Amino acid sequence: MELPACYLFQNLSAPQINSLAAITIEEQYQKGKWLFYKDQMANKIYLVKNGAVELLIKVQDTIEMPIALIRPDNGCIGIGTLVEPFRYTLSARCAEDSMLLHIKREDLQDLMCNDRELCCTIMKNLAQKLLSRLTETRKELKIHFMNLVRSAAF
Amino acid sequence: MELPACYLFQNLSAPQINSLAAITIEEQYQKGKWLFYKDQMANKIYLVKNGAVELLIKVQDTIEMPIALIRPDNGCIGIGTLVEPFRYTLSARCAEDSMLLHIKREDLQDLMCNDRELCCTIMKNLAQKLLSRLTETRKELKIHFMNLVRSAAF
Repeated sequence: MELPACYLFQNLSAPQINSLAAITIEEQYQKGKWLFYKDQMANKIYLVKNGAVELLIKVQDTIEMPIALIRPDNGCIGIGTLVEPFRYTLSARCAEDSMLLHIKREDLQDLMCNDRELCCTIMKNLAQKLLSRLTETRKELKIHFMNLVRSAAF
Repeated sequence: MELPACYLFQNLSAPQINSLAAITIEEQYQKGKWLFYKDQMANKIYLVKNGAVELLIKVQDTIEMPIALIRPDNGCIGIGTLVEPFRYTLSARCAEDSMLLHIKREDLQDLMCNDRELCCTIMKNLAQKLLSRLTETRKELKIHFMNLVRSAAF
């Protein structure tokens, strides 16, 4: 199985990618299907082979704050699977009929325990992505902060 | 030298902590001194032995958005030092006269290359902290989002 491009798996060797492919499971999902909800135990990490998955936070019963739309070329879904306390930090729903790949947390952890180079590489890739997302999220916050400063000045 | 409590160094062994202490440099800083500015090359990571350092983003020449106040018991300063492309993502200034410890990026990278267990542990600790900060920052954003939704409804 060929794994889709995902920032987590950058800089891995061909044998390391093969080990990951060996624990990867493919499954078809219908549009509208929830993969998981925020704060649930994170037992699987997902990649998009085709289709699209939206990441969001429920603000109220009927109001959702969109966070990202994940397509085959831009990432993975459920990084809480890699980080203690292993909870999803967002909710995820199929935006289209989608073919998804998933890796179970225990399988990935076994692999990372047995191959410390792979563990270092994946955790470095993850930290890089998280720092970049944090910086982007702070930029959005900065816009709100400036609006507050402006409205306080008038 | 005893390293202050820092989330990055949780779950390291005593010999690993000793290796870190051996590359750590102590220096006194005066209140108001800038350690670094956002977007500069991140060449050093800092810990607070005593005193306090504020992390902030300059919004305009005279306006600053405060992000965090780092004291001896809660963290470190300059995690861009650990993550490519090795840039500081915030600015840092001493909020009090402070005794700081720093570790140079090359020294830390040498250590992490030579001890892959230490590398895995530090990068896991970092990813955990970054995910938790990202979740907190999204919570703040959610408050602004709800205010916008409310004001649009009236």
